[in-house]
Amino acid sequence: MAYIELTNQLPGITGLLKQFTRTAKPLSELAQELLRGPSTLTPGERETIASYVSSRNECTFCMNSHGAAARHLLKDNASWVDEVISDVESSGVSSKMKALLNIAGKVQQSGQKVTRDDVQRARDEGADDQEIHDTVLIAAAFCMYNRYVDGLGTWAPEDAEDYMEGGKVLATVGYVRER
Amino acid sequence: MAYIELTNQLPGITGLLKQFTRTAKPLSELAQELLRGPSTLTPGERETIASYVSSRNECTFCMNSHGAAARHLLKDNASWVDEVISDVESSGVSSKMKALLNIAGKVQQSGQKVTRDDVQRARDEGADDQEIHDTVLIAAAFCMYNRYVDGLGTWAPEDAEDYMEGGKVLATVGYVRER
Repeated sequence: MAYIELTNQLPGITGLLKQFTRTAKPLSELAQELLRGPSTLTPGERETIASYVSSRNECTFCMNSHGAAARHLLKDNASWVDEVISDVESSGVSSKMKALLNIAGKVQQSGQKVTRDDVQRARDEGADDQEIHDTVLIAAAFCMYNRYVDGLGTWAPEDAEDYMEGGKVLATVGYVRER
Repeated sequence: MAYIELTNQLPGITGLLKQFTRTAKPLSELAQELLRGPSTLTPGERETIASYVSSRNECTFCMNSHGAAARHLLKDNASWVDEVISDVESSGVSSKMKALLNIAGKVQQSGQKVTRDDVQRARDEGADDQEIHDTVLIAAAFCMYNRYVDGLGTWAPEDAEDYMEGGKVLATVGYVRER
């Protein structure tokens, strides 16, 4: 049971977005832009960054929701999600993604943890400034979403299976359903 | 010098918002809603929460910008900002604000740090569910803005005096200038 009274039974951020509509609008539009907007990082790669940061923040709902979306989008490479959460450097993702995930992991701790060397490594592996920008902002945004979800004590389904249908909806429909 | 190439010389988040316009829109609209939207917490109280969380994230630009906005809005109570950053419990803010700042400080560390007892204390001091919700989301959002600003290595004026004019603009104009 959440720390505040919710007028619906929806888990994680979905119940908050449904009830608090004024803030839901920019929160949803930000997720849509970051995870589905024009980018040379695929939606699957961006959802992997989101799930990875959420795992480091120990946010069960976001880790599983975005992990399920990432698996759906990555198709044959669905195993990347668990590999990244377990250990980025030995995972199957590209060297560029490893360098970006290193930056995302630093951002999860604190903005100050990111160094010019971390950014240079990403550039050396082929990342451009837009990709570095987007990685930092995705990681930063999930430090917000994760805190919103857990700071208000929302509930989360325990079984990873329970996130599969929702992950498919995120993968195919996205984050902004009504305009 | 920021870690990525910026086409302007603006400090902190302002240079990022000017250059990365697609994400700037929801980021600005979220700040406007959280800090200026309808609420029983005054804009000055909400800016104080923003500056407090930014100080705990050691984000110089955000701490000073929102501190300057808060001081402008709080008028005769401008000293509250420094008092809160120094020590919430001995500061001049209301008991309700102390309880809400306690929640904001927990959110700054991690969403999981907030307990039902923290929320009950805020309720006992007169906070309602909307105020508790807004406090958690303001604190969470500044964990994002702070990481965005510092994770990309943007520059920040060192002298607190240099934030006074900008703080006045934030206090009087707000965060969304064009629609």
